[in-house]
Amino acid sequence: MDNFEFCNPVRIIFGKDRIRDLNEYIPSGVKVMIIYGGGSIFRNGVYEKVKNALKGVNTCEFGGVEPNPCHETCMRAVTQIRDSGVDFLLAVGGGSVIDATKYIAAAVYFKGDPWQILSRNASINKTMPFGSVLTLPATGTEMNANSVISKQSSGEKLAFSDPKVMPQFSILDPTTSASLPQKQVANGIVDAFVHVIEQYLTYPNHAPLQDRMAEAILKTLIEEGPKVYKNPADYDAMANLMWCSTMALNGLISRGVPEDWMIHMIGHELTAFHGIDHARTLAVVLPGVWWVFREEKGEKLEQYATRVWNIHDGSPAEKVVRAIERTTEFFESLNIATKLSNYNIGIDTVEKIVQRFKKRRWTAIGDREMGTPEKVREILEHQLK
Amino acid sequence: MDNFEFCNPVRIIFGKDRIRDLNEYIPSGVKVMIIYGGGSIFRNGVYEKVKNALKGVNTCEFGGVEPNPCHETCMRAVTQIRDSGVDFLLAVGGGSVIDATKYIAAAVYFKGDPWQILSRNASINKTMPFGSVLTLPATGTEMNANSVISKQSSGEKLAFSDPKVMPQFSILDPTTSASLPQKQVANGIVDAFVHVIEQYLTYPNHAPLQDRMAEAILKTLIEEGPKVYKNPADYDAMANLMWCSTMALNGLISRGVPEDWMIHMIGHELTAFHGIDHARTLAVVLPGVWWVFREEKGEKLEQYATRVWNIHDGSPAEKVVRAIERTTEFFESLNIATKLSNYNIGIDTVEKIVQRFKKRRWTAIGDREMGTPEKVREILEHQLK
Repeated sequence: MDNFEFCNPVRIIFGKDRIRDLNEYIPSGVKVMIIYGGGSIFRNGVYEKVKNALKGVNTCEFGGVEPNPCHETCMRAVTQIRDSGVDFLLAVGGGSVIDATKYIAAAVYFKGDPWQILSRNASINKTMPFGSVLTLPATGTEMNANSVISKQSSGEKLAFSDPKVMPQFSILDPTTSASLPQKQVANGIVDAFVHVIEQYLTYPNHAPLQDRMAEAILKTLIEEGPKVYKNPADYDAMANLMWCSTMALNGLISRGVPEDWMIHMIGHELTAFHGIDHARTLAVVLPGVWWVFREEKGEKLEQYATRVWNIHDGSPAEKVVRAIERTTEFFESLNIATKLSNYNIGIDTVEKIVQRFKKRRWTAIGDREMGTPEKVREILEHQLK
Repeated sequence: MDNFEFCNPVRIIFGKDRIRDLNEYIPSGVKVMIIYGGGSIFRNGVYEKVKNALKGVNTCEFGGVEPNPCHETCMRAVTQIRDSGVDFLLAVGGGSVIDATKYIAAAVYFKGDPWQILSRNASINKTMPFGSVLTLPATGTEMNANSVISKQSSGEKLAFSDPKVMPQFSILDPTTSASLPQKQVANGIVDAFVHVIEQYLTYPNHAPLQDRMAEAILKTLIEEGPKVYKNPADYDAMANLMWCSTMALNGLISRGVPEDWMIHMIGHELTAFHGIDHARTLAVVLPGVWWVFREEKGEKLEQYATRVWNIHDGSPAEKVVRAIERTTEFFESLNIATKLSNYNIGIDTVEKIVQRFKKRRWTAIGDREMGTPEKVREILEHQLK
C-alpha cells in the first residue's frame, strides 16, 4: 500500500425529506444565493422545498447554469454576488450546478482573472462557504474538492481541485431524483461505475480493503442500477445509487492505490468533438482500454471477473474476455451504447483525437503511463463497430 | 435505508515514516503536551521519532496513562496543562492514550467536575485541539468522536461521544506497530472484527453498500489478520490491519443501518468482574449472542456465512451453525479463547451479570432490544464451556 493522506470534512445529510432541515446548516445572519440550472427544480418541487426550508433567511437567486458549466456564466454570478452582499452559496441541482458553485466560490475573492485557477493552477486563498442540495446522483462532486469548468470563448474544458471548495454540507435526498429521465439515471450509474474503475482496475498493490470497497460499490451498482433505471421512484434503489455515486468519488477508495483515468481522458475528447454525454463516452472507451491492456491489467481484470461478475470457469484470458462482455452488456442494458458507430463516429475522429494527444506535452496517459497516442488509436479503433 | 448524517473531518496521515511530517500538522507557535502511556514508546523508538519531528516546537510531557484510562490520571494532566500554558495536545500511543487525551481535551475548559461529561452527559462547549500518533491498531478512536474513561474512586467505566473531541489529525504509521506483542495484535484484530459485527449483524435494511463495506473489512481481517499475528513486522499486513481497524469504527459502515452493541455491553461486565482484556470478552460473548438469536438474526447470519466464509452448502440453519464455528475457529487461531471456562468463570458470575442487567433502568439491550436479562443469561450459559 502506498502512503496516503485522507481528509473529507463534508457533512452529508442523507435521506427522505432532509431538505426540510436545511436551515440548521446555514450560518445565521447570512445572505444566501441559491444557484441552480435549467429550471428542473421548479418542475420537480425541489425549489419549493428549499424556499420553504429557508423561510426567514435572506436569499437571492442565480439560475441558468448549463450542463457543462461555463466560466462566462459563473462570472455573471460573481458580479451579482459582489453587487448584492451575498455571503453564503447554496447549489441546488446536479453535478454541473455544484461544480459551477465551487468555481464561483473561489472566483469571488480571486484577484485577477479567475480562469487562471484552471489554466495556470493559480492558488486559491479564500473561498465563499457553500452547501449543496443534490438532485442527480452521478459525479460525486457533492463530497469532493473537484470541479470541471468550460470556457466558451476559447473552447477549453479544464478541471481544478482544492480542499477549500469542498461543500460545508450536502443534502442527499433520494426523493428529489424520483422524477429524473431514464437517460440521466443511466448516465449517473455509468458515471459512478467508471469512477470506481479508474481507481481500481490498475494493478495489485497490497491493498485488499480498498479493492473490496471498490468491488462493493461496483456490485451494488450492478444490483441496484437496473432497478433505479426501471423506476427512479423506487426509493431504496435510488438511495443506494445516490450513496454509491457519492462513495465512488469522495477520495476514500483511491487512498494508497494507483489510479488510471485514461478512460476519462479519452472520453473527454469524444465530448469535445461530438458533444456526447460524458458518461456515454466512458462506456464507449472502457471496453477498448481493457481490450488493449488486457495483459498489463490482467491480474486486476481477472480479480474483477471473479469477484464482481462471479466468473469462475475458463482460463484467465477467457475470464477477462467474459468480464469485458458482461460489463458491456451491463451498459447496454441501460440503453448506453458502447461503440463509436452508434454515434456515427468513424476513423476520421479517431485520427483527430490521436493527433491531439500527440500535440500535448505529456507523452502518455493513465495507469503506468501506458496510454501513448498509438495505444489511444488502438483503443478507439477497437471500439469503431 | 434509514436517514443519516455523516461528517468525519479527521485528517488521516497514513504510511511509513509519516511521523517525520508531524510538524506540518501542528499549529505554529503552540506549546504541545505529548501524552503517552506506560512507556512502550521509549522502547520501540516512537518517542524519539516524535521528538525529532518536533524539533523547535515548545513541548512538555505527560506519561503514565493506564490501559483503561482513569479520570484521576486525566485530571492530573489537566492540572499540568493549566499550570504550564499548553495549547495543543498530542496523544502518542494506542486507544487508551487517545481516549484519555479526548477526555483531557474536554476537561481542561470544563466548568465544574468534568466527570459530569460521562455521568450526566453534560455538554462540552470548548475543547483543546489535539492530534494523535497511533501505535496500536484496534479501537478506531483515532478517527472517531468516542472515548471510554474509568473512575477509580467509584469503579465506574463510562463512555462519551462528541464531535468536538475528534482529533485534528491522526498519524497511522504501521512501522510503529512492528514490535507489538502477539497478544495485543490478536486483541486488535478481534476488536476491529467485532466492531464491524455490531454494525452489520442485525437485520436487512435495504443497504447493500453498507453491508458490502462491512463484509470487505471482515474478509480483509480474516485474510490479513493471521499474517500480522504471525509477524507484526510484515508491513503490508500491518498496514491493512491498521486501515481496517480505523475503517471499522469511523462511523461510515453504520450510516443508515441498525446497530447492535449487545456483545460489547455484556463483554464490559466480564471485564468489570474479572479484568479480562476487552477484545477477549467479545470473543467469548459473540458466539453466544449468535446462537441465542440465530433465528432473529437468521437472514444476516446466512448472508455472513455465504459472503464472508463462502459457505454455500446446507440448509440455512446449517450454514448459520457453520458460520458460528468458523468465526470461533478464527478467534481461536489467534489464541483467543471463546469459552468462559477458559477464564475459570462459572455460573456465579453469570448470575451476577444477569442481576446487574436486571437492576438497570433499561429493560433490554442491543438489536431490536432483544437482549433481556434472561436472554443475557442464556447467552452466557451457552458459553460456559
